[in-house]
This record gives sequence, structure tokens and C-alpha cells, in this order.
Amino acid sequence: MPETYSIGLDFGTLSARAILVNVKTGEEVAVSVFGYQDAVIDKHLPGTNIEVPYAYALQNPRDYLEALECLLRDVWQKAGIKPEQIIGIGVDFTSCTMLPVDKSYQPLCFDEKFKGKVHSWPKLWKHHGAQREADIINAVAKERSEAFIKRYGNKSSSEWMIAKIFETLRNDPEVYANTYRFIEGCDWMIYQLTGEDKRNSCLAGYKSFWNKNDGYPSKDFFRAVDYRLEGVVEEKLGEEVYLIGEKAGELTQKMAAKTGLNIGTAVGVGNTDAHLAVPAVGVTEPGTMVLIMGTSICHMMVSDKEIMLDGICGVVEDGILPGYYGYEAGQPAAGDIYDWFVSNLAPYEYVNEAIEKNVTLFDILNEKAYGIKPAESGLIALDWWNGNRSLLVDSDLTGLILGLTIRTKPEEIYRALIEATAFGTRLIIENYINSGLEIKHLIACGGLSRKSKTVMQIFSDVLGMGIKISATNQTSALGAAMYGAVAAGAEKGGYDDIKDAAKYMSRIREERFKPNMGYYQTYTRLFEQYKKLHQIFGIEQDEIMKSLKQMRAEVLNDK
Amino acid sequence: MPETYSIGLDFGTLSARAILVNVKTGEEVAVSVFGYQDAVIDKHLPGTNIEVPYAYALQNPRDYLEALECLLRDVWQKAGIKPEQIIGIGVDFTSCTMLPVDKSYQPLCFDEKFKGKVHSWPKLWKHHGAQREADIINAVAKERSEAFIKRYGNKSSSEWMIAKIFETLRNDPEVYANTYRFIEGCDWMIYQLTGEDKRNSCLAGYKSFWNKNDGYPSKDFFRAVDYRLEGVVEEKLGEEVYLIGEKAGELTQKMAAKTGLNIGTAVGVGNTDAHLAVPAVGVTEPGTMVLIMGTSICHMMVSDKEIMLDGICGVVEDGILPGYYGYEAGQPAAGDIYDWFVSNLAPYEYVNEAIEKNVTLFDILNEKAYGIKPAESGLIALDWWNGNRSLLVDSDLTGLILGLTIRTKPEEIYRALIEATAFGTRLIIENYINSGLEIKHLIACGGLSRKSKTVMQIFSDVLGMGIKISATNQTSALGAAMYGAVAAGAEKGGYDDIKDAAKYMSRIREERFKPNMGYYQTYTRLFEQYKKLHQIFGIEQDEIMKSLKQMRAEVLNDK
Repeated sequence: MPETYSIGLDFGTLSARAILVNVKTGEEVAVSVFGYQDAVIDKHLPGTNIEVPYAYALQNPRDYLEALECLLRDVWQKAGIKPEQIIGIGVDFTSCTMLPVDKSYQPLCFDEKFKGKVHSWPKLWKHHGAQREADIINAVAKERSEAFIKRYGNKSSSEWMIAKIFETLRNDPEVYANTYRFIEGCDWMIYQLTGEDKRNSCLAGYKSFWNKNDGYPSKDFFRAVDYRLEGVVEEKLGEEVYLIGEKAGELTQKMAAKTGLNIGTAVGVGNTDAHLAVPAVGVTEPGTMVLIMGTSICHMMVSDKEIMLDGICGVVEDGILPGYYGYEAGQPAAGDIYDWFVSNLAPYEYVNEAIEKNVTLFDILNEKAYGIKPAESGLIALDWWNGNRSLLVDSDLTGLILGLTIRTKPEEIYRALIEATAFGTRLIIENYINSGLEIKHLIACGGLSRKSKTVMQIFSDVLGMGIKISATNQTSALGAAMYGAVAAGAEKGGYDDIKDAAKYMSRIREERFKPNMGYYQTYTRLFEQYKKLHQIFGIEQDEIMKSLKQMRAEVLNDK
Repeated sequence: MPETYSIGLDFGTLSARAILVNVKTGEEVAVSVFGYQDAVIDKHLPGTNIEVPYAYALQNPRDYLEALECLLRDVWQKAGIKPEQIIGIGVDFTSCTMLPVDKSYQPLCFDEKFKGKVHSWPKLWKHHGAQREADIINAVAKERSEAFIKRYGNKSSSEWMIAKIFETLRNDPEVYANTYRFIEGCDWMIYQLTGEDKRNSCLAGYKSFWNKNDGYPSKDFFRAVDYRLEGVVEEKLGEEVYLIGEKAGELTQKMAAKTGLNIGTAVGVGNTDAHLAVPAVGVTEPGTMVLIMGTSICHMMVSDKEIMLDGICGVVEDGILPGYYGYEAGQPAAGDIYDWFVSNLAPYEYVNEAIEKNVTLFDILNEKAYGIKPAESGLIALDWWNGNRSLLVDSDLTGLILGLTIRTKPEEIYRALIEATAFGTRLIIENYINSGLEIKHLIACGGLSRKSKTVMQIFSDVLGMGIKISATNQTSALGAAMYGAVAAGAEKGGYDDIKDAAKYMSRIREERFKPNMGYYQTYTRLFEQYKKLHQIFGIEQDEIMKSLKQMRAEVLNDK
């Protein structure tokens, strides 16, 4: 049999990429990247003066479609291989990034009638307009002692599907009424490739309250949230869900014509970026946590036990790997915070130093921060610049820096921000362990893990654990390509399950970050203070941050 | 009678200045400034490699002496008047800035034997090495229910005289034993001018626990603090204290020869910078608070009632104006914090903008911050970058910023820092009013009041009160010159008391900052949150900031 290849398509926040992977070795043969023209829409709707409200984050589906076609056309030609050597395609997407579509699966925002309405546009994962709706959903679930909510640490996020749908219903009933389906960006891509609406178990489980045994929450529940939502599942989502690792369908004639690929190429059911990292770094069984470290951090692991615990994004059977309960937790900002600091508060001399040395401003700050010892700055921070996902699931929380004096240096603040994100991760790990789950190893992937020695060493020291690093920049895309190979099956030169695919295709570096155990002890003392602040501002007096946000919203509305 | 003049000498933290003032009009005829060569000594003792410990702030008395002679020689020649027209000299100094001297009033640090010992050098007001000693003093005063401590809000500061002396005793008994007198810089200057050690009632009252009726605390008290301190007053301070407004003496032959001034020129008893501002802006009776706004803020007022209240620096009879109880409160950092931000965290583009527009970086930030509305940033801060003086008297507290998000802009942080200092002042005012003191008017002086419209408007809005501004840059020096004229007396062309002097010599601008009462209401809501943070970090859980400082000290000691 000649060499076979699989394509992994990875739709991120600002760009999409395709990688072409050798199915036997996991080698990346070609990579194509496509930047979204409209990126994140948070000021005006495209081509209009219509303002996008505060905290909204929308996207343009045109960008998704152009990316899809362009990438699929480009990546195999670039590699110089033949279309018939490509046996499968896998797709991942940010989530919950959702859009309303009509009966022909056209986005509502493509319709002249709706394009001036904000709720007709795709809501990006980090769209934060649905907090009130999430509050209602959580309150009703609690009141009714709904079993499903326990799988989400008893609290669902404003970023998820039902809250975003409910937000649309409350703010623009006309858009809601004219929507045939609300669909994850990922599943919409599968529809584009195969012509079929095949919701995947990962996102249905993690973002839409679906469960393998119980299905979606009951009509009674949805009616209790809002009588108009009673039929939301059958009317707006569709009841069928397909397990990850299954084949979704085959490439349509139309899409084959547009991309030059063969009709009938296998396409796997969709997935989301973070979850794919798990097999992509070779994890196919319990005991290892995978940290996906970029603008935000996701914490992934699998177990053969289903344990309900507070403060996780969700525990979903067949959510991360077929046959296991998948656990996801997360911090909504990490690299985002470091970026914010470097973009806004890096001093003039450091910029000049970077220019002189011909390195990035990050390099300068990383270098200066690396030399600071734990506790030396006297600073501690709460890493809630984008709110808190785990353990508190509260997007109204905000960031805090404490310990400032007139001697505080910029690089000390920068380091404190990194430490804060590491403390956030430590709290998540502690929560898992206290609940009876086992974490023996850590593997990190994502931009931060490969770019910043400073960040990774701090994480290793704060967590007191070694950390291995993915050997590819394209972890999610590699995972998608692995599911593409599984969709094709062993008979066609792929694999019959993800364990086999991971065995041959996953990629990880040999060296790892090792903790300085003296530093770990100091960090353990600092962590006690972090937990106190977490308790004060996240739980006991969470009204402080909320009231500031509330007042801010009032002022901005007046303006 | 020909025109008469008075000289005001003002010894600040980094420089000293002299102004020559027309006694009839208050007009500044000449100003001379002298920058201290060694400024603040916080790294190595002058001319040595001997390291100065963390949190220490020392000075070189050589700088004081050179400034004194140079300024007195320069200022009258510059004005082109005759020495006999100068009828008086007044002096103020930062406080408590104290030094150990030998029997001939030579600083111990001038002695070869002692110059390598840190405790032989003058300890600047912001020297923070004596917190443990202040803790002991406070604990003993509390245990013994000492009456004197009530005048200081039941808590004395590590910055004050007895704590600094005790620090010397505990850390270097040899320096202590060889010290004939510990003396305020101010009183030491009076000694240089007149040859007499005449302690002034202002500093004896505010910094050394002296009281007009009761004198210094008892020997029993000092023995309870440490048996070696039993005789500290008679042995190391001297028991005599002279009231402000009195004549300390006359210019010595030696000093006259050095400066060209007439032998016998009247010299008033010393004073401290902040307290002099009160008559200098024309305040000679109760009802008006004077804010001295620079690197730090002092809050001054007088009353005919003696009320004991928490969180003030002190209530001292004859401490600010003869015949009244003087009240002082303070915030140890204001301009210092804004400076810190601008020096460390102003972004590259703003620096370039300042260069392009040929303005200061402060101008750029002030301009950008001015346009932000109250609550719009969602930020709130605690202004404790240098610890907290009023109401908490705790130098181990540190700064905090809360409400940060990835949308937070540098000018929003800058504004939040200004607001935090204004909230600190509001808390001080609220404390006075709740205790039965009346504050009907506000007058501000000092660099900030004249340089930053943004700062002053925010203060007016936060406080909900109009604020008048001093018409001179040299408020303290003007006040000193007024006391110089009072020392000379009416007969010699001066005045018989400070009220008369203030009537003719004080200077204030006609326009004032007026509060936006809508903003005031918003700030009242924000202030509630400020008070919550004050309660949490200053009182209920003050161990959080302290433990970070403690850990920091441990790490720095290890290094």
C-alpha cells in the first residue's frame, strides 16, 4: 500500500489551519494557514455602523467558508501528493462557537433581512453576553435538583450553547423564530464537507448538556427556564448525536470539486481544539493531565470513573476519548493576560532593549522575569482577567494584583501574572485529586508550552511536577488528522480506533521541565494566600468585583 | 521703615530651598534651591561598600550643612537687598528625620569610628527599619493603657522618633551609647543657626510623644518598653520644648560670617514642612482642612476641641497653630504612586506621543485619564504602595489593583490610582467628621495641587467639595518665612503672632476646583467598595499582605 495521509483542519479564534499528516508516522508533511478577515467582531457589524454591545464577540461565517475551501485546496497541492493518497479528514473548532442557520444551513447573517441584527451572527466562544441567561439556567437547574448539572460542577457557563440560544431568544425573538438550527461551528463545517448535520458527542456533551445515557435535559427543565424553550432540542438542535471516532460521512461532490480532493474521502465527526490534544500527545488512558496552554488554558484528562465535582467544565462520557469519562477544566485567560501586560504596560526602555537585541518584547520580559525568585517580588495576583471558569464558573470576576509598592518592577508584575495562572492550574489539580482522581503526569501543548521557558518552569515549580511538552505546534490539527485516519479505518490505510492512531501518530518531546522543589515549597506558602484571595473574591465577597462590573456597564450605557 | 524681609528655609527629601519674602505682602522676592548630593541613601553608605539594609532610608548631614550655608548666602544676594533688611529666619524640615549627634552636636557619622555603621546616619522620615520597635511600643502602651497613645489614634508609627531611637539601641548599642542627643533635622538646623538646642513643640508633639501638659511619657513606660530606655528623655532628647511661634535665638557670629547675614537676626523655633502650610494658605482657625499634596499627602486642621480618634498621626496642642489643637493625618504615598506608574508602566506609544507633542509623559496620562468617567474602568485600587498611615498606621500594608480585564487600558489604571488616593483622603475626612470635627472648606497646596488638573478634579469629585489652591509653589517655605517674621516681632518690622502674619503674607488662588455632584454620587458607590477592601486587607485579613512582605524579606535575606 502506498503512503497514506490524513488532513486535520483546526479552526481557531483568529485563523484556521490545515495540516497534512503521514498516517504511519504522524509526520507533518504540509501546513497551510488562513487568517480570518473579520477576526473577532466586537465593534461594528461587518459593513455597517451598527455597534456591537460590550462583551460581545462575534465572527463572520464567510471567514470559515473561505478558510475551509482555501485550506483544503492548498495543503495537498503544497505537499505534492495525489488526492487519492488522502484517506480522511478531521475537523476541530473553537467552542462553543455557535451560529443560527436556516433550513438550507445558510447562516442567518447572510440574509439581507437579518444581517443588521447582532444575534444573527456567530457567537464566538468568548462572547460574554449571556451571563444573565446562564444565571437563570443555573438557578432553575439548582431549584429543580437537575441531575445533569452535576456533571458540570453544578454551574454552567455563559459561554455555552443553551445560554447563547436563550440570549438570542430574549434579545431578538425574531432571529430565534427564524432559526432552523443553532449549530456549533465545528458541526457546521462537517455539514459543509459531508452535507450532513451530525452533532458530535464531545461538544453536545461539554457545551449543550447532552449525555450518552440520558440525552438532553428534559422538556420540563427547558420550560421552567422559559416556556418558549420547551421544544428547543427538537426544534433548534436536533436530537441525534454521534460519538467521536465515528465517521460522519464522505466528501460531497460539490466540495470535492472546489478543493480537488476525491469524492467520498472519509470525514470524522467533529471535535473541539482542546480535546483533540489528548490523543495528539499520546494520552489514551487515565493518569495524565494534558494542559493546552495558549491565550487560555484547558485541563484535560480521562478516567474510567464518573465523579461529580464542583468547578469543572464538565465530565462527559465519550467526550474526550471513546470509552472513557472525559474531564475538562479551564482558565479563560493565560497567554491573554501576559499579552495584555506586554502590549499595554511594557516600559519604553524594554521596548528599546528588544529592538536593540532584535528579540521580541516577550523575550525581554521572560528573561527578566526568569531571574526573579518565588516570593521575591512580594506580589500575588488573581488570574481572572477574563473571569474564572474553574473552579468558580463566573465570568463577572476580574483580575487583581496585590503587594504593589513603589519599588515594584514591571517584570515582577509580569512574573506574578504567570504565577497566578499557575496557581489557578494548581487549584484545579488539587480539586481533582481531592475528589479521588489520579494525576501522575503532566503534558503541555499549545503556543505557550513551546515558546516560553519562563512560563513552563514557573508552572513546573508551582505544581511541583515535571512537565513534558508536545513536539508539534499543531497539536489540535494533529488530533483532528488522527480522527480523520480513524474515520477512514484500517482497511483504507487508517486506523480502527484512536488508541492505535495515537500510538503511531502522536508526537512528544523527550526532554521535560523539572520542578525546583525548594521553589515548590515557597510556592506552597504563596498558594495559601492565593486560596485566601480566591475565597474572598470568588466566594465570600464576590459582590465586590461584580458591583464594579455592574457600575461599569451602567456608565457605558449612559455614554 | 524700609521694606523688611524674612527668609524661609525648607528642607525637603531630595533638596532644600530658601525663599526671601516681603514681610508686608508675602511676595517671593527670590528663591534658591540646593539639591542633596547623596539624596536618599538606600544602597551603600557614602564612600563605602557597606550595604544599607532593605527598607532603610538614610541621608548625609553634609548635604544639610552645605544647603544651609549655600542657600543663606545665595538668596539675599540674588535679590539685591541689604542684610539688615532681613529681620527673621524660619526653618522647616521633613520629619521625623533624625540623627544621633555627640556632645558638640557633630553627627556621629562624621566620626571615623562610626561612619561605617548604618545607625550613625540620619534616618529619613521614610526610613522603614523600625516596624518591630514600633510594634513593641504600641503593644506596651496598650497593655499599660497609656494616656499619651490616645493622642496618636492608639497607634504610633515606625517612622517616628522613639521607634527610630529604639531601633538604634537594639541594633547597635554602641552607637546608642555614644549618642549625646538624638535630634530632629529641623532642630539640628536651629542649632546650627543659633548655637542652641531648642526642640520645637510641633515635632516633639507629633513625633516624640511630648504633650504641653504632660510632657513626655513616663520613665515607667520607657522601662517597660526596654529597661535601657528608662532615661531616654533626659539622656538622649533633653526635656525642654519650645512652642512654635517663639523665637529660638539669634544668628551666631560664625553663621553670620559664613552667610553674610547680620549677627543677631531672629530665628524662630523649628517646624515641619506640612504643618507650615496651614498658615501659609491663610488658615488660622478651625473649619478648613489643608491638604499638602506631593509624593505623599498630609491632612492638617486645627480645632479648639481635643478629641481622641483612631487613625490620625496625632492631635497636638500648639502643634500646628499656637492656641489650637492641631490634627494631622496622612497618606504616605500619592504622587509617589503616580510617579511609579509613569516611570515603570507607561507604554511605548505614550512616550512617543509625549516626545512628539513636546509635553511630559504625565501630561499625556493626565489628559487621557481626564476623559474617563467614574466607574467606567471597572477598576478600584488600595493606595498603600508605601503602607498606610491614616487610618491604619501600618507600614507593612501594600498596594492593590482590582477589576483588571484584558480590555483595561494604562490610563484607566493611572486614573484608578489617583482615585484610590482620593478615597484614602475621603476616609480620613469621614473619620474626622464622624468624630465630631467640622470640615467646611478644603485648601490644597504642594506640587500635585498646582501641576495636575486631573488629580485635583478627581479629588474634588470624590470628596464632593470645592478645593482652593495655594498661589505659591513654596508653601512650606512661605510658612517658615512667616514664622521668621513672627520671631522678629512687630517692633522690628515683623508680626507679633502668626494670625497677623497669615493675614498679610499668605497666598491663595482665587479660582477653585468644583465638584461634579453626579460624579460624586457614583464615587460614593465606589467608595463603599473601597471601604470593603480597606476592611478586608487592613483589618480582618491583614495577614495576607503581611505574609507576602515577610516571605519577601526571607527571600531577600537568603539571596
